[in-house]
Amino acid sequence: MSNIFFKIKEQEEIANQLDLDLYQRQAYLSKVADFANAYLDDLPQAKAYDKTGADKESFRIDGKPKSMDQILTIFKEQVTEPGIRASSGKHFGYIPGGGIYASSLGDYLAAITNEYAGIGYASPGAVAMENEVLDWLKKLFSFPQTAVGNLTSGGSIANLIALTAARDKYGVKNEKIRNSVIYLTPQTHHCIQKSLRIIGLEDVLIRYVPVDERYRMDTQALEKQIRSDQSEGLSPYLVIGSAGTTDVGAIDPLEEIAQISHRYGLWFHVDGAYGGFFILTSKKDLFKGIEKADSLVIDPHKSLFLPYGIGAVLVKDAKAVLQANLYMANYMQDALTDHLANDPANVSPELTKHFRALRIWLPLQLHGIAPFFANLEEKLLLTTYFRELLLVAGFGVGPEPDLSVSYFWYPYQGDQNAFNRRLLHHIHEDGRVFFSSTLLEDKFVIRMAILSFRTKKETIDQAMEMIQACLEKTKEEFGEQ
Amino acid sequence: MSNIFFKIKEQEEIANQLDLDLYQRQAYLSKVADFANAYLDDLPQAKAYDKTGADKESFRIDGKPKSMDQILTIFKEQVTEPGIRASSGKHFGYIPGGGIYASSLGDYLAAITNEYAGIGYASPGAVAMENEVLDWLKKLFSFPQTAVGNLTSGGSIANLIALTAARDKYGVKNEKIRNSVIYLTPQTHHCIQKSLRIIGLEDVLIRYVPVDERYRMDTQALEKQIRSDQSEGLSPYLVIGSAGTTDVGAIDPLEEIAQISHRYGLWFHVDGAYGGFFILTSKKDLFKGIEKADSLVIDPHKSLFLPYGIGAVLVKDAKAVLQANLYMANYMQDALTDHLANDPANVSPELTKHFRALRIWLPLQLHGIAPFFANLEEKLLLTTYFRELLLVAGFGVGPEPDLSVSYFWYPYQGDQNAFNRRLLHHIHEDGRVFFSSTLLEDKFVIRMAILSFRTKKETIDQAMEMIQACLEKTKEEFGEQ
Repeated sequence: MSNIFFKIKEQEEIANQLDLDLYQRQAYLSKVADFANAYLDDLPQAKAYDKTGADKESFRIDGKPKSMDQILTIFKEQVTEPGIRASSGKHFGYIPGGGIYASSLGDYLAAITNEYAGIGYASPGAVAMENEVLDWLKKLFSFPQTAVGNLTSGGSIANLIALTAARDKYGVKNEKIRNSVIYLTPQTHHCIQKSLRIIGLEDVLIRYVPVDERYRMDTQALEKQIRSDQSEGLSPYLVIGSAGTTDVGAIDPLEEIAQISHRYGLWFHVDGAYGGFFILTSKKDLFKGIEKADSLVIDPHKSLFLPYGIGAVLVKDAKAVLQANLYMANYMQDALTDHLANDPANVSPELTKHFRALRIWLPLQLHGIAPFFANLEEKLLLTTYFRELLLVAGFGVGPEPDLSVSYFWYPYQGDQNAFNRRLLHHIHEDGRVFFSSTLLEDKFVIRMAILSFRTKKETIDQAMEMIQACLEKTKEEFGEQ
Repeated sequence: MSNIFFKIKEQEEIANQLDLDLYQRQAYLSKVADFANAYLDDLPQAKAYDKTGADKESFRIDGKPKSMDQILTIFKEQVTEPGIRASSGKHFGYIPGGGIYASSLGDYLAAITNEYAGIGYASPGAVAMENEVLDWLKKLFSFPQTAVGNLTSGGSIANLIALTAARDKYGVKNEKIRNSVIYLTPQTHHCIQKSLRIIGLEDVLIRYVPVDERYRMDTQALEKQIRSDQSEGLSPYLVIGSAGTTDVGAIDPLEEIAQISHRYGLWFHVDGAYGGFFILTSKKDLFKGIEKADSLVIDPHKSLFLPYGIGAVLVKDAKAVLQANLYMANYMQDALTDHLANDPANVSPELTKHFRALRIWLPLQLHGIAPFFANLEEKLLLTTYFRELLLVAGFGVGPEPDLSVSYFWYPYQGDQNAFNRRLLHHIHEDGRVFFSSTLLEDKFVIRMAILSFRTKKETIDQAMEMIQACLEKTKEEFGEQ
């Protein structure tokens, strides 16, 4: 054996470099913590958007070790500076992200302890923690405790889980697909159509139910369409409502949709990825009916201010979820019990997964719930405030929004779309505050999505100041009206 | 407006609690870092397995803030202590995990900066970093640089992406499903069957190709089955090989499977989740043919020692991947370019995602590649060493393993399965070192999977000592042979 001892020793000396001792860990952590603190302290001054690209060459993996200083310099210059600074309170584009500090401590501990969060046998605590977070969500949304749930990487996988459960509950497969009908609106998030393609429902019939003037599903049209489809021998099986659309933050009339869905025997799914957590604000009433949904998606990395990488799904019919996801072989499906759904691996496409529960549980315990809800209420107020400032400055604004997404445009008398496109161009060139745009019935509008926990009244004032400056520039180019 | 100012102010005071100042961050980080250091320094002494469960009540989210000390105490007692200690070098069960320290720094920074890694427009750097990691993987496995790839949450989603691409390439949908045939072996990981159910292929025909005495696919049987299926008018379209099976670490004859697959016009997928990175060890030759695969899955959270939450997939046919995953609407598919596949959101079911690239890129840059490969080579040597010790101690061991998974049993002359079950029971009761088991042709065997970067020669010696003690106990109960 002496030969193998020698060979092991030889590898061991190099291999051990991955297992850092206390001194090395402290030295690296100190550098990383200093970097993070400088980054965070610089945030209020930093631009929210820099249209410079990244130099892919700078990331080259050549196999040779580099110093932490070199690595952090590349990270700073090539990752944090170009593009959108998603951690900034001055990010008003798309759906802004979060990134509260307490979550980063959760991720740090999750990586070090490396608990296996997929199966309770391996890590009873990590799994119990995930299930406690899910139980808390069930209470928030008045779902029964018998519902099953999962913490996913984001809204897309969460929606995919719900859509798969609905598919399996109604046996929509093979030749039945072309005959089955799903109802949504033109404002439904694209990840739904993408999920449908992934789960094999590319050819399912999708009805785009018309929306009212505030982009909410027209429930009369919905019911009419369902009846018409049923009378033609088709198989309607799923209605998808949004609790906060991405484009304008509209909440579909959930109560009415729930009643219609169930009257006709359809599954009612709610995508509340963006807006879900606003249920605990003064806007609570708009969510009435959400508790009647058969499945619900909410994204803690949106309206709970967590860093990207955590979504959630709740589904009332446990068996429907287990049908596709149960990890064990088919022949064990007769043994289905409530207990099986406690293992995240049985209710999600994932098996081994990131121990995500810690990045939500730790902040909820550390801060309590109050500051999360205060943030949401504050975002609603800031939305109102921003819209008032825009009106005073001569902008047109969309209708009173349901939540914290709205839009505006400058009412230029010539080519209004061209004018507003140019205005947004200047806003992007400036970059201090970031906005994105959308097209609403061919009208180009600038969106304002207020969802960062770092967005404050001063941020709105700064945004307004920048918009004014960009407006002046655009006016000069286009000529006064 | 004064009314709204007052209301904003009111919420702001509570809301601001989520945005910690430098002093608060340092205080919390200091506690968390101390906790992590104590945890890591205690690892060599800690048990690898504790069969105690967790108390779900202890995780209760009651909405009230708690101190970091309280939180860390719950985490220690209820999460890190019960179950399997996946960070331990004494974890030899299932496929052991990693959790190198450098990754935890990557996760910490990813959460704080919250870069949006799904689309290059939002974070050119985060996306370029992911693509550089993927390019590095393409080089490792001799895949063309035109292949597309994605960093997923683990092997399951990675396999799902590959299986979806194969499905779409061959147009396996609707009524074609029941006529389409997939070839794998009884040793193929269950996540494949699960993925097939999720992507709507529940009723596809699955042929379990027989394996040889070392559990590798019998390629003659494969070819015979394909010909027979084709002659019966069925549509074979996919062969799945494993580069390191979970049960015994066997590598299927990849070169032969590649040739047969392509001779008959089938997609060849390789699941290298466990074994992939061993390609850069002395076992390189066993991977010959992997470069001919149409798609490949590897799991950096397995054989690259990273914490749970990162898998990878490579697919040669970009268009096949984009078909289901492209985020944009269908009508834009004519505009497909190479460029689209650069955005992770277009080649994965995810849209918003965890910025995973940093937890792999940072360690690769900090340590260089050498210590990763030295670790893998060391694990191979330790496997040989462990098997020799077991033989000397009178155990039976499986055939010379391809990689670092093997198995053993005590050759008891009575009810051998009962004896070895009891032996494993004692091993679990002891808990210092953790093993899991499997059934091979009705023979109960104890698996030894050596893949933790913390598993060293001393760890094997400790394991052997514990096994001896448990063997004595079992012998006493069963009576000497």
